[in-house]
Amino acid sequence: MTGPDCSARRKKLIRLLKTADVDALLVTGETNVRYLTGFTGDSSWLYVSSGATVLISDARYTTQIAQECPGLDVHIRGVGQSMTAAAAGVMRSDGADRPGVEGDHLSVSQHRALENQCSPTPLTVTRQLTESLRVIKDRFEIGEIRRAIRQAERAIGVIRAAMRPEQTETEIRYALEASLRDFGAAGPAFEPIVGVGPTAALPHAHAGVRRVSESPLLLIDWGAATCTGYRSDLSRVFVTGKATQRMRRVWDTVLRAQKAAIDRIRPGAVCRDVDEAARGIIRDAGYGKRFGHALGHGIGLDIHEAVRLGPQSDEVLRPGMIVTVEPGIYVENQFGIRIEDDVLVTRDGCQVLTSVPREFDEAVLDFLA
Amino acid sequence: MTGPDCSARRKKLIRLLKTADVDALLVTGETNVRYLTGFTGDSSWLYVSSGATVLISDARYTTQIAQECPGLDVHIRGVGQSMTAAAAGVMRSDGADRPGVEGDHLSVSQHRALENQCSPTPLTVTRQLTESLRVIKDRFEIGEIRRAIRQAERAIGVIRAAMRPEQTETEIRYALEASLRDFGAAGPAFEPIVGVGPTAALPHAHAGVRRVSESPLLLIDWGAATCTGYRSDLSRVFVTGKATQRMRRVWDTVLRAQKAAIDRIRPGAVCRDVDEAARGIIRDAGYGKRFGHALGHGIGLDIHEAVRLGPQSDEVLRPGMIVTVEPGIYVENQFGIRIEDDVLVTRDGCQVLTSVPREFDEAVLDFLA
Repeated sequence: MTGPDCSARRKKLIRLLKTADVDALLVTGETNVRYLTGFTGDSSWLYVSSGATVLISDARYTTQIAQECPGLDVHIRGVGQSMTAAAAGVMRSDGADRPGVEGDHLSVSQHRALENQCSPTPLTVTRQLTESLRVIKDRFEIGEIRRAIRQAERAIGVIRAAMRPEQTETEIRYALEASLRDFGAAGPAFEPIVGVGPTAALPHAHAGVRRVSESPLLLIDWGAATCTGYRSDLSRVFVTGKATQRMRRVWDTVLRAQKAAIDRIRPGAVCRDVDEAARGIIRDAGYGKRFGHALGHGIGLDIHEAVRLGPQSDEVLRPGMIVTVEPGIYVENQFGIRIEDDVLVTRDGCQVLTSVPREFDEAVLDFLA
Repeated sequence: MTGPDCSARRKKLIRLLKTADVDALLVTGETNVRYLTGFTGDSSWLYVSSGATVLISDARYTTQIAQECPGLDVHIRGVGQSMTAAAAGVMRSDGADRPGVEGDHLSVSQHRALENQCSPTPLTVTRQLTESLRVIKDRFEIGEIRRAIRQAERAIGVIRAAMRPEQTETEIRYALEASLRDFGAAGPAFEPIVGVGPTAALPHAHAGVRRVSESPLLLIDWGAATCTGYRSDLSRVFVTGKATQRMRRVWDTVLRAQKAAIDRIRPGAVCRDVDEAARGIIRDAGYGKRFGHALGHGIGLDIHEAVRLGPQSDEVLRPGMIVTVEPGIYVENQFGIRIEDDVLVTRDGCQVLTSVPREFDEAVLDFLA
């Protein structure tokens, strides 16, 4: 596997700086730093200008940076030097006139400290510069997300094949995490949600002690993180017993909503319209109040990143974006159904990257009957 | 197990507000919200004043909040309402004159949005109000951290007993995580560091593919998180083969440094003096440049929290603080030795809460010889 071309990414970022009227940027978002350098540690900032690129870190990471980011200039701050003081020093040395900071990834306190330390040079607050690059996935990234999807799909196949009525949500969660690793994932993309019946009515529930046999429906929301940090994100419901007619109707509504939304995904589509394609179907079926979250979100190095498919989102889809499409209906104290796939925006439409079956009949685990 | 008294914590916070010249506080730090409410989810803020306490969240968490925080007022924002808009609405309804925000847990962008939405009411930037409560652990918290230590110690006992020369760092890491759960932990307190020889020379390395047999030293840095979220943090080195005289000398230096630091821990001690007690010994032994991190940090709901035992830290220890003491010496490409224990500051000195043996001879795994 060839790694990402971080140098090319930094060049693109430098070209973007003038759009924000800055001539340098202090990158403080951890994932942004990783995207621009390949460094997988934390507590490190990156300074970028046309004349300098410096990773600011500490002695815990000296060797790791040399391994992960060969050739990159590094400033290792001493044990007693604060991060903002180290960054201000690096910025002063480079002498940028209009340095920018990342408004979304710098706390108010850090910003104040940095303003003092950089004085009299003013700091410009920028937003979403690196993120605007990250939102469009390059060939390497699409390959890695496909890999993360394959890992997730292989793992859920094992979990499905091994399912037993007496298993608890927590047991399944840990078995799933282990299976993801067996298929080469660095780990789960996030804490997997494994919800039997009423648990699944909480869209973000933790796996607990309910057993598969306690409800005819089991929801799993899971994904893999590859060794390079890219993530997949899927949700499926398994029919582990005798489902009611209502469960089946809800399932069909969610699936119709998802398909309608995916049909709208293409370059130029406005995110809120994609959301509405699904939300309208759920509303018309009388479940509008039971779909309390956005339809989807971008995935990449973060499990939630730009863009957002939500009712207020006026962003426009472009080729190379990868988004989740995950409508859900949650019936309190009874069950929840969410069907989630990962979709790549292509030049003339979209491609669903995930391939786990979505139909009710395909999700019935006959061997549990 | 009785839960924490979150209501008492909020009352203490309200009494603290006047020290920061505010009459209300928007709590945006995730761990601070958990500390003050017991809520274990994310993406939620807490507004506190003498007249109102409102948890601001979204529909994914409605039921979970009802379960985890019975009786707490909740504002569930709609799918299209931003967090800052929801918070501004809650703040306006309460009508505080001088509301404060958490400067360490609010991004520059969020702060700007909130200032616009709250206008003309100005926002005061506060720092470390909730943290100043969290730094002193109450009886419940000390009990939970003791529990997290017990879980970690039971688990490492299993790992030690089961160790085989052909095991990889990664295999040991996952076995350790599983063992932590077997003893009742919710999970590891952080990604465990399992480093054979050269890997351990990177203080924050990820477990990789090196096998136990590749070096006579194996470093493990691990901890447990209890179901209530409290954490332990330990490091030990195991002697898995024939160690050199130099390894032994380094070990003895690290251990002497740790003991000297622990001897200084008592109410009134200044953190930098505790750090220097260890750092001086390592410096005198000629390894000053090979100890590139602070001596320790507070633990609690976060794995790193106030206070910091570092060379510039002028904080003063008080009864009820719990800190790690973790000097280390790292010899690049060869090995690293770090010995880490968790220490409670008591009324008249301190108590080491951890009890895994620390001496070289006690760490020799004879059965691998």
